Amino acid sequence: MKLYRANILFTPSPEAFQIFEHGYIAVNENGLVEGVYEQLPEQFKSAEVIDFGDKLLVPAMNDLHVHAPQYRNHGIAMDMELLPWLNTYTFPEESKYKDPAYARRMYSRFVRDLWTVGTMRASIFATIHPEASCLLADLLNEAGMGGLVGLVGMDRNGPDTLSNTVEEAVEGTKRVLEHTKNMPRVSAIVTPRFVPSCTPEMMTALGQLALDKQLPVQSHLSENPSEIAWVAELEPESTCYGDAYQRYHMFGETPTLMAHCCYTDGEEFELMRKNHVFAVHCPTSNCNLGSGIAPIRRFLNAGIPVALGSDISGGSGFSIFKVMQYALQMSKLQWRNSGQKENFLSLSEVFWLATKSGGSFFGKVGSFEPGYAFDALVIDDSDLNFDNYSLPHRLERYIYLGDDRQIVKRFCAGFEIAEPKI
Amino acid sequence: MKLYRANILFTPSPEAFQIFEHGYIAVNENGLVEGVYEQLPEQFKSAEVIDFGDKLLVPAMNDLHVHAPQYRNHGIAMDMELLPWLNTYTFPEESKYKDPAYARRMYSRFVRDLWTVGTMRASIFATIHPEASCLLADLLNEAGMGGLVGLVGMDRNGPDTLSNTVEEAVEGTKRVLEHTKNMPRVSAIVTPRFVPSCTPEMMTALGQLALDKQLPVQSHLSENPSEIAWVAELEPESTCYGDAYQRYHMFGETPTLMAHCCYTDGEEFELMRKNHVFAVHCPTSNCNLGSGIAPIRRFLNAGIPVALGSDISGGSGFSIFKVMQYALQMSKLQWRNSGQKENFLSLSEVFWLATKSGGSFFGKVGSFEPGYAFDALVIDDSDLNFDNYSLPHRLERYIYLGDDRQIVKRFCAGFEIAEPKI
Repeated sequence: MKLYRANILFTPSPEAFQIFEHGYIAVNENGLVEGVYEQLPEQFKSAEVIDFGDKLLVPAMNDLHVHAPQYRNHGIAMDMELLPWLNTYTFPEESKYKDPAYARRMYSRFVRDLWTVGTMRASIFATIHPEASCLLADLLNEAGMGGLVGLVGMDRNGPDTLSNTVEEAVEGTKRVLEHTKNMPRVSAIVTPRFVPSCTPEMMTALGQLALDKQLPVQSHLSENPSEIAWVAELEPESTCYGDAYQRYHMFGETPTLMAHCCYTDGEEFELMRKNHVFAVHCPTSNCNLGSGIAPIRRFLNAGIPVALGSDISGGSGFSIFKVMQYALQMSKLQWRNSGQKENFLSLSEVFWLATKSGGSFFGKVGSFEPGYAFDALVIDDSDLNFDNYSLPHRLERYIYLGDDRQIVKRFCAGFEIAEPKI
Repeated sequence: MKLYRANILFTPSPEAFQIFEHGYIAVNENGLVEGVYEQLPEQFKSAEVIDFGDKLLVPAMNDLHVHAPQYRNHGIAMDMELLPWLNTYTFPEESKYKDPAYARRMYSRFVRDLWTVGTMRASIFATIHPEASCLLADLLNEAGMGGLVGLVGMDRNGPDTLSNTVEEAVEGTKRVLEHTKNMPRVSAIVTPRFVPSCTPEMMTALGQLALDKQLPVQSHLSENPSEIAWVAELEPESTCYGDAYQRYHMFGETPTLMAHCCYTDGEEFELMRKNHVFAVHCPTSNCNLGSGIAPIRRFLNAGIPVALGSDISGGSGFSIFKVMQYALQMSKLQWRNSGQKENFLSLSEVFWLATKSGGSFFGKVGSFEPGYAFDALVIDDSDLNFDNYSLPHRLERYIYLGDDRQIVKRFCAGFEIAEPKI
């Protein structure tokens, strides 16, 4: 049993933070939280306590939508909307991952940058390339971090250099699955890029693979009006964009992440609710590409699960703390645009999205309730806390003003995670 | 004459960056730019060149709307819209600046934080308190930075602890003006808080003061629907919110900054255009308070001058680089909402807003054209530039991904500016 003392903040539910000022957390030999306490319980009195002093201890971040092979492009090329952006900037960059040496150089930095900002688990789009995808899994695993790696299926409307056959996509995904089978926190996820990139044959095969192997699924949904119109053309029999996944068993029959959902409404909304499909909210990306903003309040009201994603490189930065900030801000613009009818998100709600809600895709992750994996960040905010702010205000200031400089320790599943080598 | 060598980027016009790869800039004894050159001109061949190697050299940032006495509150208290936010969080905090010791403690940090993010000049709202306002001017001046300090006039609808009489506001402003008369880059600005805070008597007196002393004016305009409705009630004879300043000679008769302008349209828009009133765009604040977003593209198309502001503490961070990012992003959402009709802003346009356009309020500031004050930042982006990005992409990556860590030198009016003591 390990015992840590710190100012502990987490969100068992979206409504409010649970706060333990100079509290204690016990973590067992399996890296799971045993309990959080105001006072050190009797049975631990003789145990050694690692004291983090006045620092904050919070659950680590979970990034539920990120493109590792867009690493080089993050922070540039923000002058187009989705479809031309894909063709002009993104597909040519992803094509480079045929070269394992290039992949190693970039993916090492990618994993290091996730670590830097305090993201301990991520659901990741790789490319069509099996070797590079397995390498990405290795790098995550060697770092001790958690994640799902998606070998991407795409067999139409992309460049030849970035297309695979149905068989290659299926075999490649199986290869990642096999490659990760002994990794404790890294696995594979079925990843059709998005409907415009996948023929019905590709969709059929990937859906069958997800069912056969009981694998989770990730893709993109209703990000942009031009994309939605294109899907309607390509899949005239689908009643909505979401139905174009549902028809192929990739809309909640196994755990499913759908990134963006900016224009999800009507039947698609109802399908997501009924099938417990996650909407992964990527507000920085949605701003950068001028996509639109997902109706998160309505998703939450309806019980549609929601997580946060950086969406590198549509999104410009890795920090999920900054994604929280955008989620708050965009919800306020929506509140304004709704004639002040639709309540904006609260700080505890967005924190819950980034931790417990997003983390749930990886199991019991993202909270400090008993039985949860101890994924945690120790934050030394002494430079920001120069005037005796309350603990909620300290966390709020960290979210708005802090960066990686204040994160002094990172834990995943009970292990302290060192900076990954690049 | 001083000579610097670096990768030099600036925006003489909004359309494009001027870029000198490993170029030279000559700065004369008055701290003014003599010229920027691809090759070292013959007449300087014998002079010493300070070589910044592969670093970037860009104009320093100008923050045209910021509230120094809201320093303690920045990064907290983002759960209300403008009017309740003012009453609940802001007015009580500003009341504390009656105490010069408190003011010194906070204003020192405020000036240090402007410096940290590379803002060398700012137009600042202080409080009603003359002593604290003069102290703020002292701190800016001692740092070597530039700015306009506004002693705030507010004689209605605020707490007693934060109200002054017409005479106190006029005399206080004169005191700041007198106090700064020998400061090379710090001066006073007439500052009615906003129409709801100022009786017609206050507006009359401050307008007269601006005319008599030929002082610039700053205030708030059309930030929020509730505020606009309130102004219409309070000033029934005004034909629009802008007219409630215009009637009192504070809408462009002397150089005028109006923060926000989220809902400026029709007559108000036309008045701003005709009178060359600056719209100070504060998109982070507008998001945080759910205010709305100003129609910057339409302002630019009409020739209305535009600058950027952090609006601490409605805005959450000091960095004008980050305000640029939000300006880009919000313009993309507006482009989307306009049915893709209203072009979004370009990187060079927002850079120009932050440098040459905003800087013009302080004179020839914000560019590296001959005769401009050498206000500059040296940026060591080697950690971000790990893969031979082009110079425009390096600057773009710095704007999206960088922070104060990469700013290694700061200049104001030719002087290198050291970190202000706190």
